[in-house]
Amino acid sequence: MEQVTTTLLDELREIVGERVSDSKPILEQHGRDESHHPVVPPDLVVFANSTEEVSAVVQACAKHHMPIVPFGAGTSVEGHISALKGGVCIDCSPMHEILEVNIEDMNVTVQAGVTRQQLNTYLRDTGLFFPVDPGAEASIGGMAATRASGTNAVRYGTMRDNVVSLKVVLSDGEVIQTGRRVRKSSAGYDLTHLFVGSEGTLGIITEVTLRLHGIPEVISSAVCAFPSVEDAVNTVIQTIQCGISVARCELLDAMTIDAVNRYDKLDYKVAPTLFLEFHGSAAMVEEQSQLVRELASDNGGSEFLWAIDTEERNKLWHARHMTYYAGLALRPGSRGFSTDVCVPISRLAECVSETKKDMDSSTLIGCMLGHVGDGNFHTLILVDPENREELDEADRLNNLIVRRALKMGGTCTGEHGVGFGKIPYMEEEHGEALKAMRRVKAAFDPDNIMNPGKIFTYPTASS
Amino acid sequence: MEQVTTTLLDELREIVGERVSDSKPILEQHGRDESHHPVVPPDLVVFANSTEEVSAVVQACAKHHMPIVPFGAGTSVEGHISALKGGVCIDCSPMHEILEVNIEDMNVTVQAGVTRQQLNTYLRDTGLFFPVDPGAEASIGGMAATRASGTNAVRYGTMRDNVVSLKVVLSDGEVIQTGRRVRKSSAGYDLTHLFVGSEGTLGIITEVTLRLHGIPEVISSAVCAFPSVEDAVNTVIQTIQCGISVARCELLDAMTIDAVNRYDKLDYKVAPTLFLEFHGSAAMVEEQSQLVRELASDNGGSEFLWAIDTEERNKLWHARHMTYYAGLALRPGSRGFSTDVCVPISRLAECVSETKKDMDSSTLIGCMLGHVGDGNFHTLILVDPENREELDEADRLNNLIVRRALKMGGTCTGEHGVGFGKIPYMEEEHGEALKAMRRVKAAFDPDNIMNPGKIFTYPTASS
Repeated sequence: MEQVTTTLLDELREIVGERVSDSKPILEQHGRDESHHPVVPPDLVVFANSTEEVSAVVQACAKHHMPIVPFGAGTSVEGHISALKGGVCIDCSPMHEILEVNIEDMNVTVQAGVTRQQLNTYLRDTGLFFPVDPGAEASIGGMAATRASGTNAVRYGTMRDNVVSLKVVLSDGEVIQTGRRVRKSSAGYDLTHLFVGSEGTLGIITEVTLRLHGIPEVISSAVCAFPSVEDAVNTVIQTIQCGISVARCELLDAMTIDAVNRYDKLDYKVAPTLFLEFHGSAAMVEEQSQLVRELASDNGGSEFLWAIDTEERNKLWHARHMTYYAGLALRPGSRGFSTDVCVPISRLAECVSETKKDMDSSTLIGCMLGHVGDGNFHTLILVDPENREELDEADRLNNLIVRRALKMGGTCTGEHGVGFGKIPYMEEEHGEALKAMRRVKAAFDPDNIMNPGKIFTYPTASS
Repeated sequence: MEQVTTTLLDELREIVGERVSDSKPILEQHGRDESHHPVVPPDLVVFANSTEEVSAVVQACAKHHMPIVPFGAGTSVEGHISALKGGVCIDCSPMHEILEVNIEDMNVTVQAGVTRQQLNTYLRDTGLFFPVDPGAEASIGGMAATRASGTNAVRYGTMRDNVVSLKVVLSDGEVIQTGRRVRKSSAGYDLTHLFVGSEGTLGIITEVTLRLHGIPEVISSAVCAFPSVEDAVNTVIQTIQCGISVARCELLDAMTIDAVNRYDKLDYKVAPTLFLEFHGSAAMVEEQSQLVRELASDNGGSEFLWAIDTEERNKLWHARHMTYYAGLALRPGSRGFSTDVCVPISRLAECVSETKKDMDSSTLIGCMLGHVGDGNFHTLILVDPENREELDEADRLNNLIVRRALKMGGTCTGEHGVGFGKIPYMEEEHGEALKAMRRVKAAFDPDNIMNPGKIFTYPTASS
């Protein structure tokens, strides 16, 4: 392997000059995501500037049967960027150009390394925004590759709904454009949706065309505390079932509120809480929020604490977006082991409440929070990554939580993706359909060099 | 081939009893869609009652390398159901059971043969409805297979956005379930979207889980006439760009209005016209319609002619849905040759206006109409299907219209699908991505028995 790496290093230098590295700190940095998963560094890291470079690098790797791991911002949480079989990490973060904004058509084309906040800062004066907002400052390419979502998904959808078209480098270096810049098409297979959520296992996303949305005339955020998690969840379920078009509705349990208060120096009442947001004209926002207020009150919710002006709202949502880091800060030195189940809304109250019991009876602590309007919530279990017993206990909890969600007709991951962390649940979730996914994988990556060991186990025979 | 057919006929009788036919009228009926494409009947027709039967029939056909053509309601318009290589047509229309309505989760699971009106009639008392409405009384399975849309897509999306999960029989008879009944998931490849729009070439859809929507509190429809098609289109473009959430906004040119008036005994002013609809609370509908009225007026539009009560609205939208048949009635004995381009909204006015010039200078007549809020419109060219010169002229027009749309970044088909009619444009539209689609086809149907000759040309070597 070392001989191959040396030869390949020379070949890669021909393509990208000095933008290839085998220095240990750089390798380590590219082998670690934000989760509890151990560091598994690649053999080389290439910093790519363009689709053409990615294509040339992939061709060079393919020649040597070298595994390829695409890297965006390194914010995934299921080991997506771990170089399980070594190989070359292609870091797309230097590809951070916003290529074309089409204001009239409400879409934008960006390079894969553009981050979501970079994009929204850039769009500020256009009257448009991009709604998908995972907590981290993730790259758009990475968000597309993991089918990410965030707090706005209940109204604006996930990456599934907001990616219009992709430029993708396939395992032989060929470059394709999936779909066109139109609102709909019936012209053949939906390759765009095939690559969204494929986690680098079918090809490397280098450009993304995204749907944009008009910045609403009025935006109002509110915070509402509840006697119990169940009361909060029931309010959300009723809101969704009434067809009220809430833009955000996020649950934070008491421990999460405590964490947020400490981390962001805030003073929310320590209780299960909903963070809500309403978008629209003044009349619409008034109408919708009034309806939700009534539902909340019926479920024992507090008066709404409003955040109307931009600064106040930003403070509120910054706190929400930082919950992952706020949670970790509850126990210095810990890493996050995050569950990510998503169930049908009709089963959500039961699922949340059973999960809370699991956590209450565990030796570990964890924050419960999530995008409950989608039926999706996280349990951020705090573990010492060096302590085998703790990792085993987190595993046990994760197993309980996932298996229950699957039995309820849910999914093991609403937005984090499979990586290698969720592989053990794929068979139970998909049954025979998993074989169909393998057919797709074999068709696009017969040599299994594209992010091997993610979504599917690396085949034992070749390992 | 005849020997094989006889053997297979016996085997199919073992599976479905008398529900298999080789009678000429039945074969003919299953080889004709609603378009100008010639009748190409299959060798046998099987009427399937269940997924298990479809699976058994597919296994029997696979053994004999017999082509399989799935059939729903026969309302497609690009030759999707033509048995280009003979074989067995699997008619799913007997599979018309509504299996499970989940009111709380706002979704429903149906067998593939359920039609859209059947579904909405069934849902009437639930407060929910299914919005996707192609003109024809299509089957849900067929609509999923062609990624169909209709008049509500501008607000509620197409089949792409409203299919939650599918049951599919693969080319070896294996049955898979794609995805779960949740609002979002990141658990592996998006097989649901892969099969939506795959036109029976990867597998046969036998069950569909659909997203439902709440019936709005207030529904108001309006008709507005304009001095020119451009004025009407500009009103729509501005509406979309202002982010006004119109539920329907349909263009009918003067000839279409004339056709509709005759066919439905109505008396709309013969002029380019928009049919509009607004959904929401009373306040929202008032607000939105007021904004659109102002935009329309700025573009020379007439006063809105309102249809508020259900009967009036039904009359209006029945007229819209019947335009295909109303158009054909302008020239008794003719068949429809329908274009279906979809372009970015920013190019729509130019595209419509150039297309109008093409039609004005042709020897053939045609209605222009469409879902302009999506950037999608049809030219329904009326042809005598026995007259070669007319077919050639329609071909010439279609070519002009499609190539222009492609140059504008558009697609050759917004909602009708490829069938075999749009195959000539696939390479120009997709470039290298077409090869990627072929990889998918080969992975799922190595023997090319699933609706062969659709989406891709039937390979010459094996024909």
